[in-house]
Amino acid sequence: MGGRVLSAVVLLSGGLDSSTALGLLVRTDPEVTALSIDYGQRHVREVEAAEQVASHYGVPHRVIDLTGLLTGSALLGEVEVPEGRYDDESMSATVVPGRNLLFIATAVAYAAGHEMAEVVIAVHPGDHPIYPDCRPEFHGPLAEAVRAAYGVTLRTPFVYMPKDRIVVAGAAIGVPYDLTWSCYQGGEVHCGRCGTCVERIEAFMLAGVPDPTTYADPDYARSVL
Amino acid sequence: MGGRVLSAVVLLSGGLDSSTALGLLVRTDPEVTALSIDYGQRHVREVEAAEQVASHYGVPHRVIDLTGLLTGSALLGEVEVPEGRYDDESMSATVVPGRNLLFIATAVAYAAGHEMAEVVIAVHPGDHPIYPDCRPEFHGPLAEAVRAAYGVTLRTPFVYMPKDRIVVAGAAIGVPYDLTWSCYQGGEVHCGRCGTCVERIEAFMLAGVPDPTTYADPDYARSVL
Repeated sequence: MGGRVLSAVVLLSGGLDSSTALGLLVRTDPEVTALSIDYGQRHVREVEAAEQVASHYGVPHRVIDLTGLLTGSALLGEVEVPEGRYDDESMSATVVPGRNLLFIATAVAYAAGHEMAEVVIAVHPGDHPIYPDCRPEFHGPLAEAVRAAYGVTLRTPFVYMPKDRIVVAGAAIGVPYDLTWSCYQGGEVHCGRCGTCVERIEAFMLAGVPDPTTYADPDYARSVL
Repeated sequence: MGGRVLSAVVLLSGGLDSSTALGLLVRTDPEVTALSIDYGQRHVREVEAAEQVASHYGVPHRVIDLTGLLTGSALLGEVEVPEGRYDDESMSATVVPGRNLLFIATAVAYAAGHEMAEVVIAVHPGDHPIYPDCRPEFHGPLAEAVRAAYGVTLRTPFVYMPKDRIVVAGAAIGVPYDLTWSCYQGGEVHCGRCGTCVERIEAFMLAGVPDPTTYADPDYARSVL
């Protein structure tokens, strides 16, 4: 379909990875829409970050309200968010059953309803140990299903790219990392202790890129890395 | 997982097929939840029918509000609902882009969040010509993705069973077809002229099962069948 060439919906959480995906996408695709989901996450602060990143790139930003549809996770405030390394067993409390399928379904419905070509989700290998719906075994067959039914291409550009390489690529094109948000705690500043804060700190370190983030506890990560 | 045996979420539209699926399911599964979706369909009357069918079977019924997430279909009131045979080209106006993926994603999130084993959707061969997301090429890989990520089994018991055979099976176990709703127009009674009314009339005829439905125009279907 001619009208579908180079148009994409990107799932924008407001974190490092999806913001980088957006930054790369706007260089090639004339029509990009950013979609963020309010699913009742305690760190709904990330949706504000997404708004700022989308605004930085001058792309339309849609926030979809899916509160009440997901259940069974620390990210929904049902139990405490664990501290430590992102690939620790304890992090399984942050799994949200059904989340990425629901996010992708929402983005696919948007893309198909607006005759857009692609849906982009910025999962990466650091997500794989804990989050089964970030793995290629999930996205591979799902992409096949989505293409068969709706003619929409589901793309996972970072599925084999470690987070620090994502940061290297993003820094090279000036992704505004100061606007992004990772922390699961959703406080005033990044906590520096939850799994995704530790992973963020590590990614900047390994990338050799200055970290513009303010952390409540800037030293904790070094003790577990 | 032991707790997941014989527990199922069934997507219940309130029509013939999903009501029959529910009727069959409650005979084998001790734990069944019926899920209906309000997606802004002009025939939201079907959700009331679903409520009555679920109540008949004494199973919990959850209605999920997804209004505003789908777009681009006559079923959303955006254009007129076509009349005639269900497999006519004109019926493509009733396609809702992304619908079944979004419905299944919602049901999978519910099942995974509540540690239930299965999601059941009652697509059948009559849906295949017009609705790509009712075909095995869609559900096959999607089931693979859902199992890989969430350990939930996606089942399509009627994917190769013609609608009249569904009605034969349902009549044999006393499915309350008088409570069900098919019509896309969503009026006081079934219109008898839209694609799904014509298909309903045909299914009862071919099945040799008395049709308990009141149609505004009971004669139209015979002229196109």
